[in-house]
Amino acid sequence: MPELPKEAHYGLPEVFGAPEGRLVANPGCYPTAAVLALAPVVKRVKVSSVAINALSGVSGAGAKPTAKTHFVSANENVSPYGVADGTPHHRHTPEIEAVLRRVGKVPEVTFVPHLLPISRGELETIVVDLEDSGDLPEAWDVLGWYAEDYQGWAFVEAREEVPQISHIVGTNRARLSAAVDRRAGKLLLFAAIDNLLKGASGAAVQNMNLALGYPEDTGIEHLK
Amino acid sequence: MPELPKEAHYGLPEVFGAPEGRLVANPGCYPTAAVLALAPVVKRVKVSSVAINALSGVSGAGAKPTAKTHFVSANENVSPYGVADGTPHHRHTPEIEAVLRRVGKVPEVTFVPHLLPISRGELETIVVDLEDSGDLPEAWDVLGWYAEDYQGWAFVEAREEVPQISHIVGTNRARLSAAVDRRAGKLLLFAAIDNLLKGASGAAVQNMNLALGYPEDTGIEHLK
Amino acid sequence: MPELPKEAHYGLPEVFGAPEGRLVANPGCYPTAAVLALAPVVKRVKVSSVAINALSGVSGAGAKPTAKTHFVSANENVSPYGVADGTPHHRHTPEIEAVLRRVGKVPEVTFVPHLLPISRGELETIVVDLEDSGDLPEAWDVLGWYAEDYQGWAFVEAREEVPQISHIVGTNRARLSAAVDRRAGKLLLFAAIDNLLKGASGAAVQNMNLALGYPEDTGIEHLK
Amino acid sequence: MPELPKEAHYGLPEVFGAPEGRLVANPGCYPTAAVLALAPVVKRVKVSSVAINALSGVSGAGAKPTAKTHFVSANENVSPYGVADGTPHHRHTPEIEAVLRRVGKVPEVTFVPHLLPISRGELETIVVDLEDSGDLPEAWDVLGWYAEDYQGWAFVEAREEVPQISHIVGTNRARLSAAVDRRAGKLLLFAAIDNLLKGASGAAVQNMNLALGYPEDTGIEHLK
Repeated sequence: MPELPKEAHYGLPEVFGAPEGRLVANPGCYPTAAVLALAPVVKRVKVSSVAINALSGVSGAGAKPTAKTHFVSANENVSPYGVADGTPHHRHTPEIEAVLRRVGKVPEVTFVPHLLPISRGELETIVVDLEDSGDLPEAWDVLGWYAEDYQGWAFVEAREEVPQISHIVGTNRARLSAAVDRRAGKLLLFAAIDNLLKGASGAAVQNMNLALGYPEDTGIEHLK
Repeated sequence: MPELPKEAHYGLPEVFGAPEGRLVANPGCYPTAAVLALAPVVKRVKVSSVAINALSGVSGAGAKPTAKTHFVSANENVSPYGVADGTPHHRHTPEIEAVLRRVGKVPEVTFVPHLLPISRGELETIVVDLEDSGDLPEAWDVLGWYAEDYQGWAFVEAREEVPQISHIVGTNRARLSAAVDRRAGKLLLFAAIDNLLKGASGAAVQNMNLALGYPEDTGIEHLK
Repeated sequence: MPELPKEAHYGLPEVFGAPEGRLVANPGCYPTAAVLALAPVVKRVKVSSVAINALSGVSGAGAKPTAKTHFVSANENVSPYGVADGTPHHRHTPEIEAVLRRVGKVPEVTFVPHLLPISRGELETIVVDLEDSGDLPEAWDVLGWYAEDYQGWAFVEAREEVPQISHIVGTNRARLSAAVDRRAGKLLLFAAIDNLLKGASGAAVQNMNLALGYPEDTGIEHLK
Repeated sequence: MPELPKEAHYGLPEVFGAPEGRLVANPGCYPTAAVLALAPVVKRVKVSSVAINALSGVSGAGAKPTAKTHFVSANENVSPYGVADGTPHHRHTPEIEAVLRRVGKVPEVTFVPHLLPISRGELETIVVDLEDSGDLPEAWDVLGWYAEDYQGWAFVEAREEVPQISHIVGTNRARLSAAVDRRAGKLLLFAAIDNLLKGASGAAVQNMNLALGYPEDTGIEHLK
């Protein structure tokens, strides 16, 4: 049934609204953080470059025991991955691009994930160039865009403080922040989620709630 | 004696040669990794943007017990730092720029450090834009530049394989690699060092050896 | 007001019942695990030796940043502590002895705590000798004693499976098990709690609930 | 060739001397720590009870990726193991007993291993009862026995300070200490080794050196 994916609603309700229809495509964990951080930006300013540096705990690499997920391999280590034959390619890159392009014009995205010695949690540090450097906003402008777009949604919050993994582990929350490097003319975005909750099963419960007409936090109130 | 810093030789011998004179300025850990990865590039191609995403173990935050270095704060956490008032600023950014500009033309550098739950080790993932996208090299070209520039030096090695912290912990080695994101027109550089050795005391011993006319690895042969 | 401690009810309700009077003494984390594991035993058989090997996460060492709680000191390390001048002494040893002696005859207890590189959680492995080796029970007998004594209490559970820290972290639960080394004539008891919950604030809420006449799990139902 | 094991020299040279003959049986990691700590004691006093609480890093569980060695299983966790059907049994228990009985009279040993979230290193905390409580030594006496028996051997050291894993990781050293709980009439012994060196390959090199007539530390001088 190759037609089914086309029918599915992309389950990031804070950007695309409550699911409609009978199918919901639950987003990947990396795209969840990236799209939440970038959508309000690409909607408002013309972006010429996006480089995502992503850090993920080992549960992001799956439950299967492998050489890579062995404690002794991952512990006291950090490894960039998704680079082969001298080229970065990760299956989430096209998902990030395709989804963001429903919101605004977006160039090819550079995405470099790294595996970290933590059990769960994901942090993305995103460097954005604007087409017109005169458009470079203030950090507070971006926080305002987040506040406007995500108003009323329980599980996305933007703060002046740069997010840390510890802010969101064990919750269904995405935490966002922004900074501006005016010297270099770059906008920096930060997003943190728990890959096992907002990046996976937590988002699925939230989508189910919305699809069935319940409040989005039914049964997951304590994960806010 | 404010004139002393001007007299000092910048102690990154693989780029600036063996120390001469009576003073050596031992580089900071972040600049060591950044300059080793970037110098051969900025010497050869015109670079229009440099964004450094740096990951450091907790020993990089100093031996002083603080709220930030407490085990429970750092464990199972990752925290970007060096961002204040919505702007990134870290004391190592001007060092990186000033030193690289002795080698080639370099734009303002964006530098975002992150604290990781490992004891030691540092990894930098560097995204570089070129002034002329037609200059975008192959990953193998960059490895060739590294091989050429660092030939004969014991403690810098470039490999096709992307470096991990575990490749260099407990050694005085800097390990470099490169990738090219041709879709997005970006060059990616990777550098890993042990901040307590090549990023600090190991480099100091290496500089001392060279300043005194000894082989650079005297007494630290086992740290290769 | 030195008379107050005498008036206080020892707040381990599964052993000493719901608090009465106006004062509750919330138990230390180590005594909570030790007394829950040992009380049903010393009530039923004559014990001639008790040696407690205790393992604790770094939050058990307090929130104060010290050389010992610095990430780099605690990480990749395990350190026995509470030994000085060639003698073990920890302030919780007399608490364990005094409280257990309200239940049965108990010899001087040997208690050796160790600091582990985990944020939270506590595991005690307790080796018990009996006065009369003919009294040595089966592991299943001890599980039966636990079932009998802790029936109806929400936060203590005994299982055949040996407890791990991961079974109880983030919960107010104490998890117990037992084994018998018939060759050596010893009874082994295992207890695991989260020192920040059942070993501290979780127990305090549970005690407050009981003191005020509420169900013991009011407000902490999700920590079962 | 079932007769070969009988011919082999037990490769713990500090207790049994330099290997003779053509076969050396390299000891298990747990027995190495236990026998080094206990041999000087059982040689001198009559021991009535030995309970070994052993803590091991994940490399002790083997290089094979399994559910147990997956980072997410081992991290932030501690798990006692080697207990089944309510009884402790670990393949190293009979090795410990058999080897110690070549030195003195030794009762059945209780041995409980625990898996810890560190990559390497092993710590044993051993509780010993004496047949005649009047024989209970001072901690300093035991340090003196260690000094006497291990004099001239490079890789065993006894100190007043209780050993930590960090004292020996990356070395071929065994570090020992002792304490006396006079209240409870018990002797406490502590031993720490790196299971990958003194507990495995480091010991093998040391044995090979001795078997071939070289100094024991040839090629491993830097692991002292």
